Parts: sequence; structure tokens; C-alpha cells
Amino acid sequence: MTGGFGLLVADLIGVAVFAASGASAGVAKRLDLFGVAFVGFASALGEGILRDLTIGAVPPLAFADWRYAVTAVLASVAVFWLHPRLNRVRRTVLVLDAAGLGLFTATGTLKALTAGVPPVGACLLGMLTAIGGGLTRDLLTGEIPTVLQRDIYASVALGGAILVTILQRLGHTGLIALAGAAALMTGVRLLALYRRWSAPVAVP
Amino acid sequence: MTGGFGLLVADLIGVAVFAASGASAGVAKRLDLFGVAFVGFASALGEGILRDLTIGAVPPLAFADWRYAVTAVLASVAVFWLHPRLNRVRRTVLVLDAAGLGLFTATGTLKALTAGVPPVGACLLGMLTAIGGGLTRDLLTGEIPTVLQRDIYASVALGGAILVTILQRLGHTGLIALAGAAALMTGVRLLALYRRWSAPVAVP
Amino acid sequence: MTGGFGLLVADLIGVAVFAASGASAGVAKRLDLFGVAFVGFASALGEGILRDLTIGAVPPLAFADWRYAVTAVLASVAVFWLHPRLNRVRRTVLVLDAAGLGLFTATGTLKALTAGVPPVGACLLGMLTAIGGGLTRDLLTGEIPTVLQRDIYASVALGGAILVTILQRLGHTGLIALAGAAALMTGVRLLALYRRWSAPVAVP
Repeated sequence: MTGGFGLLVADLIGVAVFAASGASAGVAKRLDLFGVAFVGFASALGEGILRDLTIGAVPPLAFADWRYAVTAVLASVAVFWLHPRLNRVRRTVLVLDAAGLGLFTATGTLKALTAGVPPVGACLLGMLTAIGGGLTRDLLTGEIPTVLQRDIYASVALGGAILVTILQRLGHTGLIALAGAAALMTGVRLLALYRRWSAPVAVP
Repeated sequence: MTGGFGLLVADLIGVAVFAASGASAGVAKRLDLFGVAFVGFASALGEGILRDLTIGAVPPLAFADWRYAVTAVLASVAVFWLHPRLNRVRRTVLVLDAAGLGLFTATGTLKALTAGVPPVGACLLGMLTAIGGGLTRDLLTGEIPTVLQRDIYASVALGGAILVTILQRLGHTGLIALAGAAALMTGVRLLALYRRWSAPVAVP
Repeated sequence: MTGGFGLLVADLIGVAVFAASGASAGVAKRLDLFGVAFVGFASALGEGILRDLTIGAVPPLAFADWRYAVTAVLASVAVFWLHPRLNRVRRTVLVLDAAGLGLFTATGTLKALTAGVPPVGACLLGMLTAIGGGLTRDLLTGEIPTVLQRDIYASVALGGAILVTILQRLGHTGLIALAGAAALMTGVRLLALYRRWSAPVAVP
């Protein structure tokens, strides 16, 4: 089983894309270099810290393994310097966010299952890990959290978390299974954005 | 001693009312079904997750015991579908919030005491458990947190936490003692709302 | 080594100044007595609770040791009653904030190192402990977090955290070394405020 290495690679890619997503939002709000790096760091690692605390893994990976923090900071700084070439910042944020959604749901759910959290809790935790990144980014940059509005986001994460739980039960926890589940979630999310699918709102 | 069962029942009722309170606020802000369920879930379970992390109970009950998450989601979805019949949403939020205040202060304080937290810390933790629900709901729906404004709220929770600590010292930790303390807090909170009692503001 | 006592004294002074900083912001927003005490408590102890959870110290000191909570509440109440004499509230907040920045970075970094967190993680945790106080205060009082805007703040904390890590490696963990590092950070922060130094913003 290559789950350990698969988890690390998928996790670091997820950290990089969520950091880039947070940093793009920070640049759009005209924050300074440290503000951009902080929003990137918090968006990429905040929900992982919560997940690690929740499964009793202290100190959380974000502090115990320097590769996480360095990845988040490098991705944020790269966005800070390169963003004039990323000429459609709003679209970039949405695409990176979709990629982060898939990767973090996959790794968050698998980590929770591996730590012995029951399936219902592990699905919730995987979903919250994925939602947390965008929620943190939006709260820190003064936007109404995207995930709470009329949009397909949490449902993609929840569906993906259930898929990963089933895959884990069937013994598929390698890099390819994880990447496949993450890519599927990212694709569904992008399709939902493109087709403007949205969840129902209560009757007034 | 029936503390275990009393705690579970009081806790699940608290979860349901805080989820309904959060969901009502989400409906009022025109969030979609998942947004409403998320605000309900976070309002009902967010502060319990923090409390469980604080007393070293990992994974927190919200993830370890599926009844918590299911109760929160069912209560939120019920509010989502039934709210046109709840014709005074604002008032409903306030009443549910008062009930949640009482129940969560009682269970939060007792859990902290049972986990060996000293009395001063347990009272604070019980108060914060109760305040956290409303705070989460207000932050997520873009309202200035009710608890911080000119109002009797935190003081009711603090008084109730001290009462529960005294009751626990006297050996009363059953369902009836808990329900009585919770009902007393809820009553005082509703009376404070009705009579428009408020805490002092600093001289300008 | 008097690290234990030095840590306690520096920590309690940091708690008092951050509570006063939070309480001043609460008074400026016309919150009631409990709102002011809550913002003071959360600004002073919120990030310490996160730090303690992160290094596996449960229950966190804020709940396990009554001196922390009492210090935070007394400092907040003192600001509530005395603020008319603090005739330049805005300036008071900034100076207290600078003092808290220095003290919390020093104690946060040292606690993380003592708990076995690797240097990179300990520096980040020390910086976040210091940033967290102001972030909590600004989020609770509806201000855009100072730390994220065009300003030298996080960089002072990060530089100070690295300094404390070097001092700890050299065996200097007593009260005088900590106070010196904290005073240096506070001085640099005040100088940055006075000279209006600021970090770069991305090219539009």
C-alpha cells in the first residue's frame, strides 16, 4: 500500500492550490506581501490544523513538517509576484478552489478513516476540511463565504467523501485512486460552475 | 447516577435547538439548502468540537457519534422546509437561542468538570460553549454578534455555569437537575429579552 | 534555568496587555461590559488556547490555570472603567498591541520549542500566537484585520520568533532574555508605526 506517499503528494498539491487560491483573493483585496502570504497559509493549512487536532495528531502536520508551511508560503509568494500574468484572477481563484476542493476532501477523509474516526464522522470531517479552505479565505478577505450561497460546493465535497470512504473500504487508498476521486470532484465542481447549477433556496 | 444518559439527552436537544436557530438565520439570509445545513451544523456543533478538543476528547463527539451530526442536519433541514409556517422567524431564532443557551451551558460545564477541568475553567468553558453557538451563527450570516452588544446573555450563561458547578459539587448531575438549571437559564434569558434588560456600556 | 517562571510572568503580562487592547477596541465599538470582557478575554487567550491544543497541552492553560482568565477579565474591566482617562483610545490600542506582539511571540515560540515542535513550526506557531490576538480583536469588532493590511506586523513577529529560537538554542530562556526579545519586537513595531513603514503590495 502506497497510501502514505500518496497522501503526502496529494496533500502538498492541495496545500499549494489552496494557498494560491487564498493568495489570489488577497492580491485582489490589495493586501501586502505578508497579508497575502497569511491568507494563503491560513486557507491552505487552517482546516488541516483543525482536522489534525480533531483526530488527535498533535502537533499538527502544518507545524510538525516544514514542507507544508514552505509549500504554502512559496505558492502564495509565487502568486504575489506572478499575478499580473494571471490575467483573470477571479477565474483563477475559482479553478484553483475546485482543485483544492477535490484534493482536500480526498486526503481529509482518508486521514480521518485511517485515524479510526467512524464513516459518518470521517465524511463530515473530509467535507469540512475542503470547505474550510474557502471559508477561511472568504472570511479573511471580507467576502460572504461562497460555500454558503446558492451553489454546488459542499454537496460535491460530501459526495466525494462518501466515494473515498467506499474506495477505502474496498482497499483502494493509493495515489491513483485518490487522484481519480479528487479529479472527479474537481470536474463536477467546474461543471457545476460552468452550467450554473445551484442548490435550492427556501420558499420565501 | 444517570449523568451519562442525562448528558446525552440534554446535549442532543441542545444540538437540535441550536441547529434550528442557526438554520433560521440562514433561511433569513436566503442561503441555499447546504448553506442552511452548514450554518445549522456549525452553530450546533462548532463550540462542542472546541470544548471536546479542549478537554482532550478526540475525536470530538460531533465526529465520533453519528447521532450528533444527524440531529443537527435533520433539525436544519426541518427548518428549511417548515419555515413558512414559522411565521415570525426573528422571534423563533431568539427563543430557540435562549433554549440552546441553557442546555449548552449545563452540558458544557458538566462535561468540563467531569473531565477534571478546575471550577473556574469549567465555568468559562461552559459559558463559551453556550456563547459559541450564537457567535458562530452571527459571524457566518454577517450579523454583529448579539452576545457582544448591549444585552444580558453571557451573564446568564456564566451564572448558570456557576449554578451547575455548585449542583455537581452537591452530587446533582442527573437529567432533572440539568434540565432544571437549563430551564432556569432559558427563562432568565427570555425575561431579559422581554423586559429589555441590558448590561452597562462604558461612559463615553 | 528559570524558564518556567519567566514564561509565566511574561505570559500573564502579555495576557493583560492583549486583554486591554481587545477591551479598548470593544469600548470604542460601544459594546456592553460583558462584550468588552469577552473581546478582551478572546483577544488575550484565544490564540493561547489554539497554541496549547496544537502542542497537545489539554486542558489549555486558559482553562486549567485560573490566573490567566482572572488576569484577562480584570484587565478588560479596568479598561472599561478607566477608559475616559485613556484619552487617546486608538493610540492606546496600538501601543498595547505592540507590547502584546512582543510578549506573545516570545512565550509562544518558547512553549512550542519546549513541547518538541521543530524550529520552523515553532517560529510559525509563535508568530501565529502573536497575530491571533489582534486578528481575533479585529474580527470580533468588525474591523479589517490590521495584520493583513499594508503594515509591518507579521514580519516583526516572524523575526522575533527566529530570534527566540536562536536564543533557546544558545540556552538563553530566562526572564531577561525573553523580556529583551519582547522589548526589541515591541520597539521595532512602534518604530514601524511611527515611521509608517509598510510591506510591499502586488503590482496592479
